[in-house]
Amino acid sequence: MKNYFKLLLILGLSTLFTTQSFAAKKVKWKMAMTWPKTLVPLSTVPLRVSSLVKEMSGGKFTIKVHGKGIHKAPLGILDMVKNNIYEMGHSSSYYYKGSNIATALLTTAPFGMTTAEQYAWYYYGGGEQLTKKVYDNFNVDTYQGGNTGVQMGGWFKKEINTLADLKGLKMRIPGMAGEIFAKLGVNVTNIPAGELYTSLDRGTVDAVEFVSPGLDIKMGFHKIAPYYYTGWHEPASEMHFFINQKAYKKLPKEYQSILQAAMKVATSEMYIDNYNKNVVAWQQMKKEFPNIKVKTFPLEILQEMKNASEEVMEKYSNENKLFKEIYQSQQNYLKKAREWTTISEHDYINTSNSVK
Amino acid sequence: MKNYFKLLLILGLSTLFTTQSFAAKKVKWKMAMTWPKTLVPLSTVPLRVSSLVKEMSGGKFTIKVHGKGIHKAPLGILDMVKNNIYEMGHSSSYYYKGSNIATALLTTAPFGMTTAEQYAWYYYGGGEQLTKKVYDNFNVDTYQGGNTGVQMGGWFKKEINTLADLKGLKMRIPGMAGEIFAKLGVNVTNIPAGELYTSLDRGTVDAVEFVSPGLDIKMGFHKIAPYYYTGWHEPASEMHFFINQKAYKKLPKEYQSILQAAMKVATSEMYIDNYNKNVVAWQQMKKEFPNIKVKTFPLEILQEMKNASEEVMEKYSNENKLFKEIYQSQQNYLKKAREWTTISEHDYINTSNSVK
Repeated sequence: MKNYFKLLLILGLSTLFTTQSFAAKKVKWKMAMTWPKTLVPLSTVPLRVSSLVKEMSGGKFTIKVHGKGIHKAPLGILDMVKNNIYEMGHSSSYYYKGSNIATALLTTAPFGMTTAEQYAWYYYGGGEQLTKKVYDNFNVDTYQGGNTGVQMGGWFKKEINTLADLKGLKMRIPGMAGEIFAKLGVNVTNIPAGELYTSLDRGTVDAVEFVSPGLDIKMGFHKIAPYYYTGWHEPASEMHFFINQKAYKKLPKEYQSILQAAMKVATSEMYIDNYNKNVVAWQQMKKEFPNIKVKTFPLEILQEMKNASEEVMEKYSNENKLFKEIYQSQQNYLKKAREWTTISEHDYINTSNSVK
Repeated sequence: MKNYFKLLLILGLSTLFTTQSFAAKKVKWKMAMTWPKTLVPLSTVPLRVSSLVKEMSGGKFTIKVHGKGIHKAPLGILDMVKNNIYEMGHSSSYYYKGSNIATALLTTAPFGMTTAEQYAWYYYGGGEQLTKKVYDNFNVDTYQGGNTGVQMGGWFKKEINTLADLKGLKMRIPGMAGEIFAKLGVNVTNIPAGELYTSLDRGTVDAVEFVSPGLDIKMGFHKIAPYYYTGWHEPASEMHFFINQKAYKKLPKEYQSILQAAMKVATSEMYIDNYNKNVVAWQQMKKEFPNIKVKTFPLEILQEMKNASEEVMEKYSNENKLFKEIYQSQQNYLKKAREWTTISEHDYINTSNSVK
């Protein structure tokens, strides 16, 4: 009996000294995201991270996700994570170009890399180190957070045949693409998403850039603007996770690994989920509105867009050294990567589409 | 003091009753892979799963990976996992077409889906359920295990301009692609990888299909056969993890989640790693051998390949109901998915490649 108590004593003491171990340590985090919970598949990514982390840790590491309805600051995610109001966030890097224009190129770039090219640049072409250089200024670690793939060029009420057709055209197209279109004479306006359909319907705007079929279908633009232009300006928009650096360091090593794996899983799943959503939505749009015409911009216009894009890149490169460094690193990698993309998947699609 | 002992007693007892909990349970698994450890990036996937599982479980769940040098049965992975000699394996589904021809389509198909299309089919188009239908016969669960992307059409000593150029051509090209080429009059031979370079050099064969620049560069074919044809036969070769169903059921829930996440992480990382390896190797090949010419097969030949491919698919569809079911499911999804692929990434690459 004495030995029995001795054993329990030892076990009890060992428990006292291992309360910091994997099993014992309970961690509760909160994550703020730019999106409302309903905006799938963007919100799917942080919500999936939350459920994966919980499953893998046996319920001991939990991350509560707050949509914009709760924190009321959809474009203030970076600040909230920097200040540890939330340990973690999910947003788009280019929303923070007001703080540092270099953030913009980490999302995507006009005439830039495709999703596979951009991930290859990020992990093997210096992208991860350059991203760290940008976000260390905010005491925030970043991770890839899901990619939309190629976004479409937008819905137009009339066909665009020449540069003259763009002069004075009223279009909703935000960000760098808007800057570029403005240089081509487009009257670029910014209208909140909720008012877009009515604006397009009433002729307040002649064209609207949004995302891709999966998200566009809910907006209904295809019912009133039959020309759907292929993309040039956001070939691979990546979302990002932000993590407060101090909070991350306090996590047990196992939870750090679990969190990193969860982010990668949710990120890769989102790309495929979104791909399928686009496949399905495009079929539905076409079926219901067989008059939709998919168009690519004429070469003359594309070349002007490219020229204007290079002017915009040069302007920001002159203003911000880190922007310049990222832009050049991306251009160097793209030049090499595109050769492989072209002779592999691109030529495969060309040839396999050409046979019956 | 009495209360102190009481507390230790309770803690001790609680430890006794929680030895089956996450922290306490030690699990040691073994995984057999088809490849030697040196065959990156194929072997990278199982090795990465092993390290991720260890990290995430705090060293309590370990998976020892055996290359073909240890188990001596590179094409016997499925059997070893079925018989629980190994709890887990990493291989290619089409190596087991001798057991069931339906396994072949789970890897890739001539004129079939690209990587993104195939993953979308797998997760959202019924692929996962059909894969389960195939492998339940072996008491084995399967998971996606890494994708090579588009494999090149092979290295040819002479340019292929007409169907006549293929008649009697001696070529090493295994699997269904070999069956298809044989229908076009190619003299298809199977030669072990280790003898391929010498065979091509000495003219025992006139052409060799292997993989893509990242793996081809080590073989040296580009030094002796200057025509590099783009791919048509393996647009998205997927590897697979096999897991013994009974072994999996015995795992604690947390370890099941950890293992699943680890497989998804390693799988998505491999695609990008391999993409970059192809980018880098292609640059190096071109620089050292500027006379390499990238060619696509002429339309006349591609159409004959497509016709022959459909004959092969029909033959196997008649022989095996499950093959037929998978083939039709893939064709249905491909038809829809390819429309999206074409107007998104494909048209983007076309247009962005066309500007200066």
